[in-house]
Amino acid sequence: MTVDKKQILEMNAFAQDADEGMSPLLTRRLRNAGASSVLFYQRPLELVSAQGCWVRARDGRNYLDLYNNVASVGHCHPQVVAAISEQVATLNINSRYLSAVTESYSERLRQTLPVPMDHLVMTCSGSEANDLALRIARNYTDAYGVIVTEHAYHGNTAAVTDISPASFNRDVSPRGVERVAAPSKEAYGDEIAAGFARAVLAAIARLKANGYGVAAFICDSVCASDGVFVEPKGFLAPAVAAVQAAGGLYIADEVQPGFARTGESFWGFARHGVRPDMVTLGKPMGNGYPVAGLLVQARPLAAFCAEVGYFNTFGGTPAAAAAATAVLAVIEAEQLQSNAHTQGLYLKAQLAALAKRYPVLGEVRGAGLFLGIDVLDADSGMRSAAAASQLISQLCEQGVLIGATGSRGDILKIRPPLSLSRQEADYFLHALEKVLGH
Amino acid sequence: MTVDKKQILEMNAFAQDADEGMSPLLTRRLRNAGASSVLFYQRPLELVSAQGCWVRARDGRNYLDLYNNVASVGHCHPQVVAAISEQVATLNINSRYLSAVTESYSERLRQTLPVPMDHLVMTCSGSEANDLALRIARNYTDAYGVIVTEHAYHGNTAAVTDISPASFNRDVSPRGVERVAAPSKEAYGDEIAAGFARAVLAAIARLKANGYGVAAFICDSVCASDGVFVEPKGFLAPAVAAVQAAGGLYIADEVQPGFARTGESFWGFARHGVRPDMVTLGKPMGNGYPVAGLLVQARPLAAFCAEVGYFNTFGGTPAAAAAATAVLAVIEAEQLQSNAHTQGLYLKAQLAALAKRYPVLGEVRGAGLFLGIDVLDADSGMRSAAAASQLISQLCEQGVLIGATGSRGDILKIRPPLSLSRQEADYFLHALEKVLGH
Repeated sequence: MTVDKKQILEMNAFAQDADEGMSPLLTRRLRNAGASSVLFYQRPLELVSAQGCWVRARDGRNYLDLYNNVASVGHCHPQVVAAISEQVATLNINSRYLSAVTESYSERLRQTLPVPMDHLVMTCSGSEANDLALRIARNYTDAYGVIVTEHAYHGNTAAVTDISPASFNRDVSPRGVERVAAPSKEAYGDEIAAGFARAVLAAIARLKANGYGVAAFICDSVCASDGVFVEPKGFLAPAVAAVQAAGGLYIADEVQPGFARTGESFWGFARHGVRPDMVTLGKPMGNGYPVAGLLVQARPLAAFCAEVGYFNTFGGTPAAAAAATAVLAVIEAEQLQSNAHTQGLYLKAQLAALAKRYPVLGEVRGAGLFLGIDVLDADSGMRSAAAASQLISQLCEQGVLIGATGSRGDILKIRPPLSLSRQEADYFLHALEKVLGH
Repeated sequence: MTVDKKQILEMNAFAQDADEGMSPLLTRRLRNAGASSVLFYQRPLELVSAQGCWVRARDGRNYLDLYNNVASVGHCHPQVVAAISEQVATLNINSRYLSAVTESYSERLRQTLPVPMDHLVMTCSGSEANDLALRIARNYTDAYGVIVTEHAYHGNTAAVTDISPASFNRDVSPRGVERVAAPSKEAYGDEIAAGFARAVLAAIARLKANGYGVAAFICDSVCASDGVFVEPKGFLAPAVAAVQAAGGLYIADEVQPGFARTGESFWGFARHGVRPDMVTLGKPMGNGYPVAGLLVQARPLAAFCAEVGYFNTFGGTPAAAAAATAVLAVIEAEQLQSNAHTQGLYLKAQLAALAKRYPVLGEVRGAGLFLGIDVLDADSGMRSAAAASQLISQLCEQGVLIGATGSRGDILKIRPPLSLSRQEADYFLHALEKVLGH
């Protein structure tokens, strides 16, 4: 198992022991970053610029970016660039002083929520937001146990790595962390919502039996790292109800599905009609400027702050707030939620049509511009990491950047900027058809 | 103890239960951020712009900023602003692709080190850097115990809060964390280095006796939160030697003293002639752009990465690297290390002269532009948090922003941008004299 997982995680990663000639910049990177160097592709791309859904490599070639959910309103969006540039030239100071731009952002952001949240705590990264959410949940519930999906990823700090099974290169079982299979047909057959809730109930029972109690259930509502599972809408509701009935908090990790990506709603959890106790934010929030946050109710936050002082130097600075404000403005002005919905439906339908013609493509899942496609071995019809890896490489040759997900890396993950146009969707579909039909 | 500490931590903090009329923006802030709202001053300042060492409030008043070590090369420095603006308009993508700007930064930064470090891992915040350093140390040493100074602050994640006694609002003793009194005359008399080393040795013995072993000693070399203790140069060496002999790693937390602040050397630890096993970076690294990092040798990093995948979405992006590169360039071009040394010596001498005339000022300590002054009760001659708090408020009225440090908040902390001019230093000295002599 150890070796398998390691190999699979590197499916679309550069592996240092390859015998190919390395570019001077790649050599420098490996020397500079050592074992922490995580790179895509066996021949990693050197990028020099980006605009909209496109990135440009050193050799002048352009690639359609279908994988980057940070530059969510489009790479180097002029309105976000202008907001950052203006604010860093004017004032960029910690939040121990008052700044109207930060307060206006907090208010505007909270107006997008379908359920009221009292406060926004701004951080630098989704990892910091989840780390804080976890501590607040444990403090408020006076319990330690956490329930996560089997291959979840919630960040890179010590505390959230423990609740991120996707991060471990070997089998470990951090104490007080229970994993449940993601809400897939494979795991639960036709009764996904009921099956998932039963699995969560069993996890609750194990946490209680082992003396940990239930502090939190944290889930990203599209199960991004597990393989993109989004149907049936509402599958989260019985699981969330079970956790909340057991005294635990439901943390909606919106680092990946948030900010209009899932099309039908601005927030991923809203597709499920559930009521989070906390909501964590990250990647797309500043379109690349490091800004993230935690939405939380007054009582759990006050209880936590009575114990521990929390201050985040780079959190909630005017520049972070300006970048994040511009992102909200662009989503609204360019109707990106509606675009994500429309282009997502189009892509899903076209991909499903391709899947009927090409045995390498299996089930197509997704909401808005967050899609997953099972990649199958053409002979066996089983999901195949090797086939996914090959497809990713071939698409790169065709000028399309895309990635894999799932515990075995055998699912294509499609997650372009929300500004993806019909023409750009077609560019990808043509490239895919060319690769499949070659 | 609980109540005392809480009160003292709020010495220069806005307290919500005050009866003064609150501005509309303050009301919004308290509603938006709730218990996580940490603000300076009983009448918090609304800032609208900043340049060099000066910040401007909403009412048009300018304040000399003697407290902000993030905007270390000067608020809104045009060269840093230009670098950020240009890069966010060109390319700002995660480090899974190659970018020359990031590799050049890593190389340039490592050239500033007096001891070679194999790799730089870039993160968003000093907290993330220390969180990662701690995990690498625990993995590499196969031990858990950590030694910190009594009132240390190393960040805000779950793991580093445990090693940050300054963060707790009540007495807690996280397991495997041993505190030693900071290297002050008060604690160790005239034998600071030897006394501090003995305290560290005793902590090592306790960690071993309790089965934790020694993973790391982490210290910031100026003991910023303990009260600014910098003399005699070299006091860290025997303590570091003891830790390394016991198999533990020495983590130099340069989040506060790094990047030329201490004047005599570019790095705070270099004043002590010690050899860190890891160096963590933060606040001033990007002059306000959220960028931080960990300098580490190849073997401990490789051992850690074999266990756990580490990736930081906003760490090492081209924009972070561009901001950080500009900071290094400005420090060099404007000779800010030399300026920190010169102006620091001047301030220290002038403050010592004032201390002879005014009984409220006690010992003056510091290196470069990182200074601490004991504030005394004029009657008793004892250090006094109330006197420090009063001085801070009065200086604010005179147009100078300054803060307090130490476990009781009875020490003025002076930490202006490194570009502080002689005239600006005099502006502060005149304001201080005016307040003291009124």
